[in-house]
Amino acid sequence: MKILLVICDGMADRPVEAFKGMTPLEAAEVPNMDRLAREGQTGLMDVIAPGIVPGSDTAHLALLGYDPMVVYTGRGPFEAAGEGVEVRKGDVAFRCNFATVDAKMHVTDRRAGRISSDTDKLASALNGMKIEDIDIIFKQGVDHRAVLVLRGPGLSPWVSAVDPHHEGKVLVSRGLEPEDEKTARILNEFTKRSYEILNKHPVNIERVRVGKPPANIALARGPGSPPEVPSFTEQHNGLNGAAVVGISLVRGLCSLSGLEIIPVKGATGSTDTDLVAKAKAAKKALTTHDFVLLHFKAPDLYGHDGDARGKVAFIEKIDGALKKVLDGLSDTVVCITADHSTPCSLKDHASDPVPVLVWGTGLRHDSTECFNELEAASGGLGHIRGNELMQMLSGLAGRNPKFGA
Amino acid sequence: MKILLVICDGMADRPVEAFKGMTPLEAAEVPNMDRLAREGQTGLMDVIAPGIVPGSDTAHLALLGYDPMVVYTGRGPFEAAGEGVEVRKGDVAFRCNFATVDAKMHVTDRRAGRISSDTDKLASALNGMKIEDIDIIFKQGVDHRAVLVLRGPGLSPWVSAVDPHHEGKVLVSRGLEPEDEKTARILNEFTKRSYEILNKHPVNIERVRVGKPPANIALARGPGSPPEVPSFTEQHNGLNGAAVVGISLVRGLCSLSGLEIIPVKGATGSTDTDLVAKAKAAKKALTTHDFVLLHFKAPDLYGHDGDARGKVAFIEKIDGALKKVLDGLSDTVVCITADHSTPCSLKDHASDPVPVLVWGTGLRHDSTECFNELEAASGGLGHIRGNELMQMLSGLAGRNPKFGA
Repeated sequence: MKILLVICDGMADRPVEAFKGMTPLEAAEVPNMDRLAREGQTGLMDVIAPGIVPGSDTAHLALLGYDPMVVYTGRGPFEAAGEGVEVRKGDVAFRCNFATVDAKMHVTDRRAGRISSDTDKLASALNGMKIEDIDIIFKQGVDHRAVLVLRGPGLSPWVSAVDPHHEGKVLVSRGLEPEDEKTARILNEFTKRSYEILNKHPVNIERVRVGKPPANIALARGPGSPPEVPSFTEQHNGLNGAAVVGISLVRGLCSLSGLEIIPVKGATGSTDTDLVAKAKAAKKALTTHDFVLLHFKAPDLYGHDGDARGKVAFIEKIDGALKKVLDGLSDTVVCITADHSTPCSLKDHASDPVPVLVWGTGLRHDSTECFNELEAASGGLGHIRGNELMQMLSGLAGRNPKFGA
Repeated sequence: MKILLVICDGMADRPVEAFKGMTPLEAAEVPNMDRLAREGQTGLMDVIAPGIVPGSDTAHLALLGYDPMVVYTGRGPFEAAGEGVEVRKGDVAFRCNFATVDAKMHVTDRRAGRISSDTDKLASALNGMKIEDIDIIFKQGVDHRAVLVLRGPGLSPWVSAVDPHHEGKVLVSRGLEPEDEKTARILNEFTKRSYEILNKHPVNIERVRVGKPPANIALARGPGSPPEVPSFTEQHNGLNGAAVVGISLVRGLCSLSGLEIIPVKGATGSTDTDLVAKAKAAKKALTTHDFVLLHFKAPDLYGHDGDARGKVAFIEKIDGALKKVLDGLSDTVVCITADHSTPCSLKDHASDPVPVLVWGTGLRHDSTECFNELEAASGGLGHIRGNELMQMLSGLAGRNPKFGA
């Protein structure tokens, strides 16, 4: 059997007063998920461990079968890989913003007026430089975003960011220990040079001329090294996998773990994404791969906005799109879950466990009648841990060898 | 949000025949706990691990977020700290009894006629002596009880007790390994000298004169070193905490972990304790602390006595006292649980998991209608482990940082 893992980012929630104490998933009409819950099994999952508030990156590491407590250093390498930059063992990668600073290196606009064009030209001006014996790889992302990869000997991810995270002085990066100082020094030098180069760049001269804030510095944060882990295929008894995912963070993480990224026109990683196109792409990928991860970002965005009605509506859209995958689907273990809770009441991630649903022809069912946080609490899967999920799914799909005789 | 952890010592139980198979908690009328169960979530908790019979000390270590399997050596340091004796890293501490021995060092009364006065004078006669390079700290406790702390180089908790635990010859302490022999030698010398000093002490001469057994020896047991662990605050992301607790063992353990001990007039650590005063003190402590532990000892005492009706009545008193805390309480995660089971049918601790209840405004609820061992088995928290409880509670209280991005 094959495996389809549907991850609805931040879908799990807490009671919403406007819904008479129901969660958005309880309030949503999800006939397809409910059918799978009725025919299959549900449970609750501590994606990392009880009480731990997962990030999307640490959560997905766990869901792919790795232990984020051991292998996670920071977000940078996933963002870089998500933007198509190769990240190698020993590299240190960062997320960056194009920002606006004054001559005293005070940040006056962290997003350089949300610059949305010509960042490729600015990135080219920084990419390929060398600082000491370290190669600089720099690439623009969406809007004001970019990624930075440092490559060379003696680098370490244990350095502080230069991005002050709000208006104010650009920070000086420091290493956690003496052996981390080289990386901090390189990053500080890169930051200084990025200003020198970008401040006089024609794109910025033109921006200033028309009254826009110049994108005259690249501010790095989220340092990390790629996790030194076996590939997804090595980790899971030879399963080959693919991912349909719109946002760069999760796309990069999937890519680094060796999943094939299926490009989908209209997959934006946001609320305007083409859900049906993604669902169809996932279904097609199942014909060529043992495992497909289908990721929807928007429930998390609605959670961060505190928009419970928007969250309900999008969950219903996911349910509708799933019908395109499920119709006529055979010989596949389907799992639907979330990477973490993003309660609308908190507008942020929370440690509350997420509901998880597992369905497959011929597999067991439990007494669950529908799919939501409350029902899942008494579901047949019980309480599981995120980094055990893949092993459970591949076991149910008959993909795991017998251990012993 | 703040956190209130109510621990009803030994409250969990097994079916009681006289209650038609209900446990004392099932049989008790606990409208306040039942309301929290209805509005919140319940589950079962293996305080240490399945099948492990917890002591109150190992259980409380786990509940405060430590791993007793790793850090626990013995009960002594908690008893000593509970009596207000400072216990330092490297010290070895013991519980002691004032007992009566004859000239051949046979114990004729392990509690010296349950001596209840002038033990301060006897303790003073032992306190402050030096044996080899080891300082002796000795302090009386309640009635015939006392504590002994050895301080100096080369000590170890891995020695046997001198208290024979019944009438008979005073035991010779031995070390588990050769490097533990020094501590055994010091303890044996202390025991001998305690007899020499106490046997001729005016308090005992007077006791003999009036026909009472002399408290002419100090018998040590329960050796241990203070756990080398981060403080509660360090362990739990900066939470500062307080404890309202009547018995010295748990008080000492809380104190050693860095919780502030709130003294309460009328808190006896027994069945005659002033529950309302303790409840009010806990509520007040919540205004100045992030975390408050409120401990009631008596359910365990009724369990040890096999007195199921007494246990029911006391559980109902706890429920009544809780109303004083709960009325008007906001922005607080409330957890009610036990440190272990003390089935009336066994008159001793058992490994059966304990029910646990978690409630807080805006948090999830499950389908549990009341609080007891049976209902909790299908509660939304599932089965958890004792040393994950604090992490879960601080996660729900929004006190844990996000791990990842």
